[in-house]
Amino acid sequence: MLDNNKIQDYKLMGDTLRFLCADMVQEANSGHPGAPMGLADIAVVLSEHIKLNPKQPEWINRDRLVFSGGHASALLYSLLHLWGFDVSLDDLKNFRKLNSKTPGHPEYKHTKGVDITTGPLGQGVANAVGFAMASKMAQNILGSEIISHNVYCLCGDGDLQEGISYEACSLAGHHCLDNLILIYDSNHITIEGDTSIAWSEDIKMRFCAQAWNVIEIDGHNFYEIDNALIKAKSSNKPTLIIANTTIAKGSVNLSGSHKAHGAPLGDDEIRESKIALGFEDKKFDIKDSVAIRFANVSEIGLVEHKRWEESLKNNPKKSMLDSMFNPDFSSIIYPKFTKDMATRVSNGEILNAISKALPGFVGGSADLAPSNNTELKNSGDFPNGVNLHYGIREHAMGAISNALANYGIFIPFSATFFVFSDYLLPSVRIASLMKSREFYIWTHDSIGVGEDGATHQPIEQISHYRSMPNFYLFRPADANENIACWQVALNLNSPCGFVLSRQNLPLLDEVSTESLKYGAYIKQDSKEPKVTLLASGSEVHIALRSAESLNNEGISTRVVSVPCYDLLLEQDLTYINSLFSGYVVAIEASRGLEWYKFAHKVIGMNGFGASANGEVLFDYFGFSVENITNIIKQSI
Amino acid sequence: MLDNNKIQDYKLMGDTLRFLCADMVQEANSGHPGAPMGLADIAVVLSEHIKLNPKQPEWINRDRLVFSGGHASALLYSLLHLWGFDVSLDDLKNFRKLNSKTPGHPEYKHTKGVDITTGPLGQGVANAVGFAMASKMAQNILGSEIISHNVYCLCGDGDLQEGISYEACSLAGHHCLDNLILIYDSNHITIEGDTSIAWSEDIKMRFCAQAWNVIEIDGHNFYEIDNALIKAKSSNKPTLIIANTTIAKGSVNLSGSHKAHGAPLGDDEIRESKIALGFEDKKFDIKDSVAIRFANVSEIGLVEHKRWEESLKNNPKKSMLDSMFNPDFSSIIYPKFTKDMATRVSNGEILNAISKALPGFVGGSADLAPSNNTELKNSGDFPNGVNLHYGIREHAMGAISNALANYGIFIPFSATFFVFSDYLLPSVRIASLMKSREFYIWTHDSIGVGEDGATHQPIEQISHYRSMPNFYLFRPADANENIACWQVALNLNSPCGFVLSRQNLPLLDEVSTESLKYGAYIKQDSKEPKVTLLASGSEVHIALRSAESLNNEGISTRVVSVPCYDLLLEQDLTYINSLFSGYVVAIEASRGLEWYKFAHKVIGMNGFGASANGEVLFDYFGFSVENITNIIKQSI
Repeated sequence: MLDNNKIQDYKLMGDTLRFLCADMVQEANSGHPGAPMGLADIAVVLSEHIKLNPKQPEWINRDRLVFSGGHASALLYSLLHLWGFDVSLDDLKNFRKLNSKTPGHPEYKHTKGVDITTGPLGQGVANAVGFAMASKMAQNILGSEIISHNVYCLCGDGDLQEGISYEACSLAGHHCLDNLILIYDSNHITIEGDTSIAWSEDIKMRFCAQAWNVIEIDGHNFYEIDNALIKAKSSNKPTLIIANTTIAKGSVNLSGSHKAHGAPLGDDEIRESKIALGFEDKKFDIKDSVAIRFANVSEIGLVEHKRWEESLKNNPKKSMLDSMFNPDFSSIIYPKFTKDMATRVSNGEILNAISKALPGFVGGSADLAPSNNTELKNSGDFPNGVNLHYGIREHAMGAISNALANYGIFIPFSATFFVFSDYLLPSVRIASLMKSREFYIWTHDSIGVGEDGATHQPIEQISHYRSMPNFYLFRPADANENIACWQVALNLNSPCGFVLSRQNLPLLDEVSTESLKYGAYIKQDSKEPKVTLLASGSEVHIALRSAESLNNEGISTRVVSVPCYDLLLEQDLTYINSLFSGYVVAIEASRGLEWYKFAHKVIGMNGFGASANGEVLFDYFGFSVENITNIIKQSI
Repeated sequence: MLDNNKIQDYKLMGDTLRFLCADMVQEANSGHPGAPMGLADIAVVLSEHIKLNPKQPEWINRDRLVFSGGHASALLYSLLHLWGFDVSLDDLKNFRKLNSKTPGHPEYKHTKGVDITTGPLGQGVANAVGFAMASKMAQNILGSEIISHNVYCLCGDGDLQEGISYEACSLAGHHCLDNLILIYDSNHITIEGDTSIAWSEDIKMRFCAQAWNVIEIDGHNFYEIDNALIKAKSSNKPTLIIANTTIAKGSVNLSGSHKAHGAPLGDDEIRESKIALGFEDKKFDIKDSVAIRFANVSEIGLVEHKRWEESLKNNPKKSMLDSMFNPDFSSIIYPKFTKDMATRVSNGEILNAISKALPGFVGGSADLAPSNNTELKNSGDFPNGVNLHYGIREHAMGAISNALANYGIFIPFSATFFVFSDYLLPSVRIASLMKSREFYIWTHDSIGVGEDGATHQPIEQISHYRSMPNFYLFRPADANENIACWQVALNLNSPCGFVLSRQNLPLLDEVSTESLKYGAYIKQDSKEPKVTLLASGSEVHIALRSAESLNNEGISTRVVSVPCYDLLLEQDLTYINSLFSGYVVAIEASRGLEWYKFAHKVIGMNGFGASANGEVLFDYFGFSVENITNIIKQSI
């Protein structure tokens, strides 16, 4: 039970936080004071509950904290500073400045203590579900002495309006993720006005329908906040704490107003508000008593971490933990392929080979596992195994997978049809921003999809992912290239997509990792080539047949396979020029405008696909040897 | 009340439908028999309720029908055939064949009677909400004599698991869309197994939380189906009918099995099933009595349509309806711009000018209207006005907007920050597939966003939309170009995106529509140019300043503004070559790989953005006159 003294301390701590945030936004002359000030009281009590070691921010058994509303970053940075992370008062003063530790929205790997990059709304809620799932899996593998922690997530109206939060919370309820505590900052303010202009549902009933524990509190009442957190930690379900708050609480004239959401309060307003709450008119002012109290997080965390390290020494699972921290990719025994098969099939075998070698390799599909060939055999289902059934929830899958990747000991993959990668795109972007090591299995990669038709045939997707920074898209031409792609991809430490065929593809010779790591290599050479054909995936075979025809007609033609355009783009001119000779033609069943970087001519898709047999479509859209060789003969 | 004779008729009709669908899939040797067979009984009763005129499929006051599970297309095509639409028995036999009227998933504009393209799950539910909203707005403008109809949507587990359905149904409940009837085919089967592997929420409670009317029935009990539809039509809320069904009902050995979802049943299974239900072993068999009964839809629809046309003659709103069918773009009085401003600001004025001239011009933002400048002034809010508050639900916004566009008398726009166009991407793709006339207002278009940082700065998005077929992306350089872009875009009859600056841009000279319609034009020429600079949006100004500097140094430089790359791509070589002279350099604060189609050199973004003042960022990432001119001098 909180006594009056503590309540007084808390009040001072809360107000200190709110003015720190208001000062940061004012100093930056840009940013969001409203949410941090509304959440400050919750943040104070959370500081008494959360388990972190600010001196070793990557401690695997720390609690995870997600600010789903990344625009409340001023509050997160203030807390990191006060808790003892490597964020100084000067860093707070440099909020939103170039190359500061304190960018506008929290960025993973950029600022120690930030567990995941947030900002685009809704994803943080799914990230939190992902952390909670990671924790459950880790606990299953390593035992509860090594893994036993909670996941806290702060979110707002916007997060809960986004469909991804519905998807993720549905899965969290289904799996009874009792380690998950979602604190909903319910301030009724959105940018266009009161939430009631577009939202009137019963949130409590919604979460009850999803099998959550729901607690509603006054988000400025320390006793209620504390009590809710205590109850949440002992619940056997995920808990939603609906915290009724006032945006910009503490601001004399702007509290409760949407004007406080995304703009500085103004010097006068801050001064007036400080005085009203008994503060001096000083910027970035932190009383010693407040600093000491917040520093408790660090002291308690240190003790807990030490105790954990002690207990780990004699834990038989220690070596398992170590091996999950440092996965040995050389221990993977890749399959030997001997026959033609779809790359989605070869990839399924490769996933299973990787899974056998790496206990932290986990993943699943958005209800397409039999089509994506992503089942890890004999591995069981979550939480007792590493197969994840995401349901038909691509976007949540992407954001959950991001959290699995950031958790520290997992290497996750997620899967769907390539055309539906559109549904998880916003989370792929965050993975790319974070350079998270995770993998996307995207099968049914082109018009080769066939009869399902235009709605199911990716056309523009390849171009999109090639234009996404830090992202590597692999499109292997056969089962053997598929292996080499994985050998390279596992070592890239950045998100990688595998774009795989539904249809059978002929087996080509084995390929060395050395060839693959440049993204492109000469698949079949010819003497003093007059023509170079570039292609990826299934079109490599069309290129090879076209080259044969051209060579027979005396037009010396080389074929370059480009399983990873992104890697080719990183090579120096010497290597790039060594690949190309004569008239360069790219052949790919995609929109393909980016090929003009390397090619004189692109034979690609100028429009959407159609519904018919896949082979019929390849001919219909011009990917026949006859059409290709005719075009080339007319061009050279 | 249904009598026994009618029930017997219904049973025969239902079984006829199921075997027709099974035969179609078998003949195609590909497709989805399970859902059509499970939904057949509902489709029979729906045929007695739905108001359509198959001979004039575009009748504005028809009921709308959305097959959200587009994979159940065999059922839709069978119904269209039986109801009397222009879909023949031969068309059914050509299911999933090249250029048939019956592609794998329903395609709007391709098959008469298909109200919207579906397949990617969840979107159909939001489309239905969009049709219901369109109907409410139309009723408000035209009166209930002209507009008074229902919207039916069939959906499955997958649709309801997708977050977009949550978003859309939340909005539908908020607005009490009593004209909306959502029939949920609850068969508990997903591709990975029983729905319970990933989904266990209480659907009834979920929809009650969203203020829906919920009715649960046996989806094979004609009486219950009929009763539910009667109740739904008289409800004052949107209605969810939870119809418990058996997948592939009627199949002797495969009913209830996930094996019946996405593969033909097999000739033997179909034969055995037909015999078990008292049918002859004949393919595509439709008894006359069944055909006559289904043809009632046509007969009743014709009568209703005639009556409606009669009543329209003396309706004072008839001319308004006509003008909404044929919007007169020449009546738009565009603003006269006289000062520098952000293009998001000029665009806001243009939207208001269009709105004044066109009563069917409707739209809104996903809670960013004040930032996107999308408020239509003095126009009121939905349903009494044309301003839509979508809430923080981008994906639902996109799919709702698609339905508004297809409704027939509206020209919709939707808005968010450009980087969050990722969230609605799957619906933009469907708009592009359908070539729907609708507009996307995407502000905060580049690193110009500034302090919000990398999560909020689009980099790869421009490349993506340029690679999307049928889609036109406009990025005006100033307020005047902004007008010309709209003049061209309104006449394209395809979806168009407007990518607009947050920051102020200098006002340039007025531009003719003639210049704009080729996508690119010479903004500033020079004598015998040695260098041509291509740019779009804010970078046009950097190009102009760079050209000035180069010209001063004796390097004759031309500047070409490219507000719409997609249109430029459609021009013939003569026009394209007339634009370029000498060394061609593209300057754009985006990834920009597609510029190599036209340029020798691209000065773009090689990675993600950062958090700092926008002007600082332009310099930091190399978009300074000094850096650009240096690069060019080194290159030529």
